[in-house]
Amino acid sequence: MSRAFNFSAGPAALPESVLLQAQSEMLEWGKARASVMEISHRGKDFEALAAEAEKDLRDLLDVPSNYKVLFLQGGATLHFAQLAMNFARPDQTADYIVTGAWSEKAVKEAKPLTQVRIAASDEAGKFTAIPPRASWDLDPNAAYVHIVANETIHGVEFHTVPDVGAVPLISDLSSTILSQPIDVSRFGMIYAGAQKNIGPSGLVVVIVREDLLERCPKSIPKILNYAEHAANGSMLNTPPTFSWYLAGLVFKWAKAQGGLKALGEINRQKQELLYGYIDGSGFYRNPVEISARSWMNVPFTLPSESLDSVFLKESEAAGLLALKGHRAVGGMRASIYNALPLQGVQALVDFMRDFASRNG
Amino acid sequence: MSRAFNFSAGPAALPESVLLQAQSEMLEWGKARASVMEISHRGKDFEALAAEAEKDLRDLLDVPSNYKVLFLQGGATLHFAQLAMNFARPDQTADYIVTGAWSEKAVKEAKPLTQVRIAASDEAGKFTAIPPRASWDLDPNAAYVHIVANETIHGVEFHTVPDVGAVPLISDLSSTILSQPIDVSRFGMIYAGAQKNIGPSGLVVVIVREDLLERCPKSIPKILNYAEHAANGSMLNTPPTFSWYLAGLVFKWAKAQGGLKALGEINRQKQELLYGYIDGSGFYRNPVEISARSWMNVPFTLPSESLDSVFLKESEAAGLLALKGHRAVGGMRASIYNALPLQGVQALVDFMRDFASRNG
Repeated sequence: MSRAFNFSAGPAALPESVLLQAQSEMLEWGKARASVMEISHRGKDFEALAAEAEKDLRDLLDVPSNYKVLFLQGGATLHFAQLAMNFARPDQTADYIVTGAWSEKAVKEAKPLTQVRIAASDEAGKFTAIPPRASWDLDPNAAYVHIVANETIHGVEFHTVPDVGAVPLISDLSSTILSQPIDVSRFGMIYAGAQKNIGPSGLVVVIVREDLLERCPKSIPKILNYAEHAANGSMLNTPPTFSWYLAGLVFKWAKAQGGLKALGEINRQKQELLYGYIDGSGFYRNPVEISARSWMNVPFTLPSESLDSVFLKESEAAGLLALKGHRAVGGMRASIYNALPLQGVQALVDFMRDFASRNG
Repeated sequence: MSRAFNFSAGPAALPESVLLQAQSEMLEWGKARASVMEISHRGKDFEALAAEAEKDLRDLLDVPSNYKVLFLQGGATLHFAQLAMNFARPDQTADYIVTGAWSEKAVKEAKPLTQVRIAASDEAGKFTAIPPRASWDLDPNAAYVHIVANETIHGVEFHTVPDVGAVPLISDLSSTILSQPIDVSRFGMIYAGAQKNIGPSGLVVVIVREDLLERCPKSIPKILNYAEHAANGSMLNTPPTFSWYLAGLVFKWAKAQGGLKALGEINRQKQELLYGYIDGSGFYRNPVEISARSWMNVPFTLPSESLDSVFLKESEAAGLLALKGHRAVGGMRASIYNALPLQGVQALVDFMRDFASRNG
């Protein structure tokens, strides 16, 4: 056996050099005489690691100095609830833009906590487009506007940051963070589960503008209060130390690739190659409006569902893993995050072309 | 450099054989052609891993069939809040037994959510004993009674399960789970952060009696609702897969040691050796009442604080790591969890004896 091209939607492929380094220092990290998993998060060694990971992430995203960077837990899903708990009063409205399964889930988790308004939705279009900004019914008094920057299941992505005026824009970037440069200053808060472009599942990165932290109510448990986490350097309780360490290695790797500009250029090429082939194939089909197509998750269907199982079996045998689409949309899905190289997409396209020629 | 005896209070030492296995399969796990970190939690390979880890934990703890075993996130601290949110109505009382820093923290996190009653506390005794059961002022209508089975900072442990009648007993077992056999049927719920006897930080094991899940309110976000987690096999959202995997390896290791009876016997010997030496030394001192002394965390002081830094420097040079006590109590602390072998305690005692002879 050997490592294959891994198109998993998440937990997703990690850079091989990162895994090799983690492997080499699994039993002894630095001068610790122990694994990085076995040392206190309050010791100077781990504190240095944590600070360096934060600095590298700030460098990569060019995070303004009036933003806090937090390393938390619970997956993006916990933060669907937690952000509503922190930034909206129960009697206040919060505006949600619904562009797929994850923004629907964000709505569901926030509903017990605030007055959710659906300011725009592409549900009627089966989540194949971003509703045009001009159509959004925003409340100027809303606590915030929430978007999911990239929908992993439907393969729909915001390619520009919408202007929502003075209301803070909050975005789940789980599946697109670090894939290309982004202007953090346009957001009140961004957050991302780690398991696509950052590291192992179980870690969530939150980047929040300091003035928003003043809204965090003192009446909620500290462990759910972002201001408390910020005041305690993400160490209000024991953080997921191994995940934080591995995220730090991924940030170093991303810097070594040339940062987000360089990664963004590779990602642009990857998606162009794949969508370009799909559109011209006359065999495969992606339903998403071209302007809203995700650079990270490419769902596609075959001419007949009866071919799905054959495609999956043969692609796996060809060293192309985890191409099964989500049950909500069916067909296939290629997730092509940062750690999946251009050669991986080329290998997929070559396979798809061959498969089409044999089954067309 | 080489691995040393690691007395860290948490994240704590892991069995070396577990780290070696994780190292060997870091890039390719089983037949996955990817790291276990890189595969979907919803694929059959990870589902099998997850089921096996649960089965092994059930075997080790002899968990009755009417209990659910959940693998969650957030540290015990999130569950301080979450259990109050799930099992007590805001207008209901909940009884807390306060035996140290962690039970104090459990109180603080629950206070915004329910009517916390301190049914017993050893605060006046500076947390050196378990308040006698007969002195507890329990409310027979309380939602639950909460204890922290072992206090890592003060080194105080419950060595019997208190009888609290028909009210469900809920216990934080973070620092004592798997250290000896326990009768799970005596509890409504037990929960434990992984980073002492289970695995890496970021994972929390929750074992909860099914009838309690009927209390979980539908009015809270799903991600904070134990019944939802139970109904979804702990996969309501992406779980911390690598931590779950590593916990599974630790469970296999614990079984190979002979299970909790055998581990309990080793742990009994370890603490007897250390407390026995301390008490007879005429140099070191542990303030905890003998019946309440922790088997896992042994705080001790030297005759003069001025010796602390010398002790720490010399012990580290002797290959005995992380002996600094918590700032709340000062002095030293030896955490002697499952993965710290009897030889480690013997090496510590040998060092302590030598240090005392040179500084007495």
